[in-house]
Amino acid sequence: MQEATADLFGRAGYRIKFNQRSYYPTIDDERIDCLLIRAQEMARYVEQGALDCGLTGYDWIMETGADVHEVAELVFSKVSRRPVRWVLCVPESSPVRTVKDLEGKRIATEAVGLTQRYLKEHGVSAHVEFSWGATEVKPPKLVDAIVEVTETGSSLRANDLRIVDEVLQSTPRLIANHKAYADPVKREIIDDMALMLGGAMAAEGKVGLMMNVPRASLKTVIALLPALQKPTISNLSDEKWCDVNTILDETVVRRIIPRLKEAGARGIVEYPLNKVID
Amino acid sequence: MQEATADLFGRAGYRIKFNQRSYYPTIDDERIDCLLIRAQEMARYVEQGALDCGLTGYDWIMETGADVHEVAELVFSKVSRRPVRWVLCVPESSPVRTVKDLEGKRIATEAVGLTQRYLKEHGVSAHVEFSWGATEVKPPKLVDAIVEVTETGSSLRANDLRIVDEVLQSTPRLIANHKAYADPVKREIIDDMALMLGGAMAAEGKVGLMMNVPRASLKTVIALLPALQKPTISNLSDEKWCDVNTILDETVVRRIIPRLKEAGARGIVEYPLNKVID
Amino acid sequence: MQEATADLFGRAGYRIKFNQRSYYPTIDDERIDCLLIRAQEMARYVEQGALDCGLTGYDWIMETGADVHEVAELVFSKVSRRPVRWVLCVPESSPVRTVKDLEGKRIATEAVGLTQRYLKEHGVSAHVEFSWGATEVKPPKLVDAIVEVTETGSSLRANDLRIVDEVLQSTPRLIANHKAYADPVKREIIDDMALMLGGAMAAEGKVGLMMNVPRASLKTVIALLPALQKPTISNLSDEKWCDVNTILDETVVRRIIPRLKEAGARGIVEYPLNKVID
Amino acid sequence: MQEATADLFGRAGYRIKFNQRSYYPTIDDERIDCLLIRAQEMARYVEQGALDCGLTGYDWIMETGADVHEVAELVFSKVSRRPVRWVLCVPESSPVRTVKDLEGKRIATEAVGLTQRYLKEHGVSAHVEFSWGATEVKPPKLVDAIVEVTETGSSLRANDLRIVDEVLQSTPRLIANHKAYADPVKREIIDDMALMLGGAMAAEGKVGLMMNVPRASLKTVIALLPALQKPTISNLSDEKWCDVNTILDETVVRRIIPRLKEAGARGIVEYPLNKVID
Amino acid sequence: MQEATADLFGRAGYRIKFNQRSYYPTIDDERIDCLLIRAQEMARYVEQGALDCGLTGYDWIMETGADVHEVAELVFSKVSRRPVRWVLCVPESSPVRTVKDLEGKRIATEAVGLTQRYLKEHGVSAHVEFSWGATEVKPPKLVDAIVEVTETGSSLRANDLRIVDEVLQSTPRLIANHKAYADPVKREIIDDMALMLGGAMAAEGKVGLMMNVPRASLKTVIALLPALQKPTISNLSDEKWCDVNTILDETVVRRIIPRLKEAGARGIVEYPLNKVID
Amino acid sequence: MQEATADLFGRAGYRIKFNQRSYYPTIDDERIDCLLIRAQEMARYVEQGALDCGLTGYDWIMETGADVHEVAELVFSKVSRRPVRWVLCVPESSPVRTVKDLEGKRIATEAVGLTQRYLKEHGVSAHVEFSWGATEVKPPKLVDAIVEVTETGSSLRANDLRIVDEVLQSTPRLIANHKAYADPVKREIIDDMALMLGGAMAAEGKVGLMMNVPRASLKTVIALLPALQKPTISNLSDEKWCDVNTILDETVVRRIIPRLKEAGARGIVEYPLNKVID
Repeated sequence: MQEATADLFGRAGYRIKFNQRSYYPTIDDERIDCLLIRAQEMARYVEQGALDCGLTGYDWIMETGADVHEVAELVFSKVSRRPVRWVLCVPESSPVRTVKDLEGKRIATEAVGLTQRYLKEHGVSAHVEFSWGATEVKPPKLVDAIVEVTETGSSLRANDLRIVDEVLQSTPRLIANHKAYADPVKREIIDDMALMLGGAMAAEGKVGLMMNVPRASLKTVIALLPALQKPTISNLSDEKWCDVNTILDETVVRRIIPRLKEAGARGIVEYPLNKVID
Repeated sequence: MQEATADLFGRAGYRIKFNQRSYYPTIDDERIDCLLIRAQEMARYVEQGALDCGLTGYDWIMETGADVHEVAELVFSKVSRRPVRWVLCVPESSPVRTVKDLEGKRIATEAVGLTQRYLKEHGVSAHVEFSWGATEVKPPKLVDAIVEVTETGSSLRANDLRIVDEVLQSTPRLIANHKAYADPVKREIIDDMALMLGGAMAAEGKVGLMMNVPRASLKTVIALLPALQKPTISNLSDEKWCDVNTILDETVVRRIIPRLKEAGARGIVEYPLNKVID
Repeated sequence: MQEATADLFGRAGYRIKFNQRSYYPTIDDERIDCLLIRAQEMARYVEQGALDCGLTGYDWIMETGADVHEVAELVFSKVSRRPVRWVLCVPESSPVRTVKDLEGKRIATEAVGLTQRYLKEHGVSAHVEFSWGATEVKPPKLVDAIVEVTETGSSLRANDLRIVDEVLQSTPRLIANHKAYADPVKREIIDDMALMLGGAMAAEGKVGLMMNVPRASLKTVIALLPALQKPTISNLSDEKWCDVNTILDETVVRRIIPRLKEAGARGIVEYPLNKVID
Repeated sequence: MQEATADLFGRAGYRIKFNQRSYYPTIDDERIDCLLIRAQEMARYVEQGALDCGLTGYDWIMETGADVHEVAELVFSKVSRRPVRWVLCVPESSPVRTVKDLEGKRIATEAVGLTQRYLKEHGVSAHVEFSWGATEVKPPKLVDAIVEVTETGSSLRANDLRIVDEVLQSTPRLIANHKAYADPVKREIIDDMALMLGGAMAAEGKVGLMMNVPRASLKTVIALLPALQKPTISNLSDEKWCDVNTILDETVVRRIIPRLKEAGARGIVEYPLNKVID
Repeated sequence: MQEATADLFGRAGYRIKFNQRSYYPTIDDERIDCLLIRAQEMARYVEQGALDCGLTGYDWIMETGADVHEVAELVFSKVSRRPVRWVLCVPESSPVRTVKDLEGKRIATEAVGLTQRYLKEHGVSAHVEFSWGATEVKPPKLVDAIVEVTETGSSLRANDLRIVDEVLQSTPRLIANHKAYADPVKREIIDDMALMLGGAMAAEGKVGLMMNVPRASLKTVIALLPALQKPTISNLSDEKWCDVNTILDETVVRRIIPRLKEAGARGIVEYPLNKVID
Repeated sequence: MQEATADLFGRAGYRIKFNQRSYYPTIDDERIDCLLIRAQEMARYVEQGALDCGLTGYDWIMETGADVHEVAELVFSKVSRRPVRWVLCVPESSPVRTVKDLEGKRIATEAVGLTQRYLKEHGVSAHVEFSWGATEVKPPKLVDAIVEVTETGSSLRANDLRIVDEVLQSTPRLIANHKAYADPVKREIIDDMALMLGGAMAAEGKVGLMMNVPRASLKTVIALLPALQKPTISNLSDEKWCDVNTILDETVVRRIIPRLKEAGARGIVEYPLNKVID
């Protein structure tokens, strides 16, 4: 997490430097002090005001029930990065089919609060116990079911677990303490950070594409580009050609480039991006 | 922990094999099934009877308040291996001098139960919150004090923390479920394991020493050896000499060998040991 | 190989994800199923139709004699990436000077088919045996000569081997099963992939260069750029200057930039590329 | 393999030193020259006389059909070290139940010779193709069945394969060229090596146990020790006690020590061994 | 150092390849031969003419007193990369306050020449001894003071040392032998290299920024950009908009982008650079 | 070096613990303070009295000309551990054949003092310059010859260097300051340490061997054992047999064991040793 966070901030333009054995990284903005704490505890300390703002997941905001301001949801444009899911699981061979079947059973989870609220919503009474780790190996020997976070489901499959229900979906959030966010100076710093983090995340799955297009083919070429992204069309010295420069999702590039070439585009060049802010 | 535990069992004569990504290691004793779970949760699952016996620390038995049978305390003979200590710490610059000064303060700890009991014993009322990790970096920004485990104190010093009081000392324990331990078959297996683990730990800081000693010098030589360990004295073909074989603490060897040589011992050989059972 | 291939496809715009211990990587194109197999076996399985298309070397197509369609030769623009060569080698001190001198000798190689065909072409009869690896250490103790693949020749030199003849040069090829390639839907997918792989490889040794040039110096600047790459010349608001944007081989940049600066170019910026498609 | 072999020879008393990038390790016995080659090729080169003796598996002797002298089978005393098995496998869901069902099918294996002989013995005609690796991922997409080596079966299970039949069991063998073994000087060197390798392997799963036993309890103690291993009983200066020193399998120690203590043995010490030669 | 240097040259456009165990790396410019030697010795060998040019620090040019031509100072644009400093240090608890207090004392340093010259300038006579390493742990047990190089001062703090004075600041320099630099052919090669190294270093802390700007907002947008960097403004097909492309310090981007967006810029894209040559 | 030294002391019975980033390791003997400094500087600081005793090489004692007391030469019994040699080397193709041919030449070395003394003894006048490292790559481009330390000569061969002469042989030495060694308390500590270090080094290449021997064969068996090491012969309960226990060089074991078995020895067991003190 630490590296991923520093990397994200780095791409957003903030240079965070971790000092060995210290949880107080330095950042190259003299207006900001950093503190590295677990996602699980972030919302609690932002709510208390010990911290002005923090990065955590929607799941831990819910688990702690902290009253904080959500500045931004950080949605990744990369297809492979999906929200994490908290799911209710039982062993493949378990007779449990729905949450109702868990009445009186034992459930292990790292998110006791989330799980108790979920059971209550479904009118189920069960014993929920805090799991210090390796939750997915506990059923059926130690508990009947678990509520666990998953991205791809591969760890669940490896432990022969079956998903009974989804308890919560969660994405990363930039959160702020209400009082801090009311202060205009702090608010500008936090909003700028949200804009830059958003720009860096938006750039993750995007690339720049520039090409020379005969004026005669310009309409055809433009029609091939996704409607949402307005390309920049520049005049060239050679008046029969123009230069088209646009931003595309990485995943569509491989389908569009062959069509652009067929439509007459030449000198097609794809280049990497750091940030994209619409 | 996993490697250290497998290594200890290995020296005790049980071959435990961890399979990648599995928490069910295999052991070369068909009467035993293994499960790898955290020290924090061991006492709970042994008490519930999900497990017959387990290895954990005295601290986590106390924290969970589990009602289990303590089969053996595993004391290391190595000097460098001391009990771990749970200590109450505050920042160096804090005005707090005794636990009494913590009235109304905020304390972070991984051992909420231990801490609450300790405060109650001292008649102090304070807010104790569960810490998911990196507890030692929290004061003074996030909390006023912490209760944390320490071996050498180096992490505390690195974070400018001062120890106010010791809350608990803890050593490893082999624990058993009461009902399982009442079963004679299970009890023998568990008691044998305790004996073998104890033998392996006793051997850790010990070495064997054998030497040829002129009969004339035997008394002097014996006098140099620590009184507690009775040496084995064998007759040799050459009747003017005998063979002395003994077990010594590694730390005294370097002071005794030069004196043994002065006293006439020859062919002094030090050899390693796997287990020592008195 | 696995990482290099995933990296090449990644730069081509296909996200391949290897799952630990699985040879069925996932790809972010729902029309495609991936299977990871050795270059040596690829042509065989494409010919049999078990696979529609594959990436392998010309050498293994020849070795297996598989009847497949070569969609594209993947030529790297980087100078340091040359074709691999299969060479006939003998110890430095061997009397063998030409392939003719190998009559009746023993030759070890991983490419038995290639070697036998080569010997037949030269009218030489020798014993060719399959080598499971470490072929270059076998002469002269175990065999008289070897036919081995080499890139830089350093492993041959380290084993005191002398190259007698080149048996084959090989570059990577995208190959397709004849029947699959006749299917228009599959063909488009394969051809698009060939175009994108080609674009990614072409970009490997290239960079983008943009600069501001006084209109008066434009001819001189254009003359300095390699003739083959037509630069994009844009009009600027300031009519005395124009913007020149071009793609260059990385290896010529260091000779051209100093000359461009002398010729009046300013604000010269070199930027990285992902793909180049002419 | 390289490290394991050097380690085995090291414990046998031969110091083999691998030089980086060289396949000619040095050994601290001036009468011996070493060459590191794959197990697959060892029997072939020993048969040809390029090497006087070698270490390989019974499987590769069979696969190559080499006519060599088997000096010794190297059997490990450790329980966890079992012979490797070559097994015929098909996908879990395959209709194939016995080798007979493979008539006309396609089989991939690294051991083409073994497989063809096995099929012939069962009167089955099938296409056997050489596999360059990752054989276990090939069914059912690329082939119908495989013949593959396995120790624990975990790789087979991970690829959803079912064992249809065992083709061969194999253990390590020290083999010699017939002519070399007829030479008395070479034979002594080879036989000594076999003895020492055997001694090192025998020691792998064994430990030494010494203890002081009251003469009165000697019979009881001796009765507890496995009959096959005759213990060494020494007289002590103190005539009421004697010293018992014996060699035991590591796996029985944990059951015997508690009983020895009950029987009156004191100062029980277990120590490690390098070699055991009966 | 080796990797950092190869990386810098790589970004400058020279591909240097280190061969394992060789100090003669290859470079993809047939006019240049490379030799890898320590910064401490570079100036000496360039002065002697054994090398035509080299990369070293100002400190080692001074220490050796070598008479060489300084072609370029390589200044990093990254804020985090500051000149290294040679400082005179004593233990925190030492009574020494200024260099004058060191009369007759013992000083350890790797730069004996620098230190002796510095003491002479201050009229101090002290014993200076060469330190082979770990200089910072020597006071106060082994010496009274040290002269040591430091970047962040963290190693000094860790060893309880206090800086008394700064002896020298040093940055990397490209140096040339006088005679070699007088040769026009060599001079052009060296000057080109200086230009390219400078361009690569300038690009380190910079990024490209392009955006579409309504003509009406162009003035406001331009005013937000740092005055020193003249942006490239291109005409677009849509005459109400223009394209602004500029180079910025990475550290100012996060403050400027939010303001640019407020001023009306759209489609703001930040992209990475390889080289910047003004 | 650090690890090897800690390991040697560990086997000698002193537990040294290195703290990360500290050059003051702790040792489990409260009478001793440790300081980790380079071999090159050890003799200097022991002579000055900053340290009472130290471990260094004979070479650095000679190089610095320090006046210290040599307590013990630490000779390894392992064949593979030979003294290091300082040798005068020139390129293979150099016309230099003897030291006399170096008149007026340039020589690089880390041991300037040793080299100058050696040249003086041979009446040769040459320029000797201090080398900061990688000395062996300097000839012939940077210097004419080097004086360099070597163990196996492999680095010299890799750099195409030829040995002209041996300048010095060097083994590790335990040295003491004259004044400290005159103090009886310090002397005993130092002498004990020398004895224990010697015992640990002697054990390095030795093993223990015990066996049961029929009394009738005892003479034959004893005759097979190396004369220098007097074996311990114990009486057994079974009077027809005796127990022979001896210490042997690891390298002779593999030749002796087969002969011992032929002579009637049974239950031959080889076991490892920690220390051997005659």
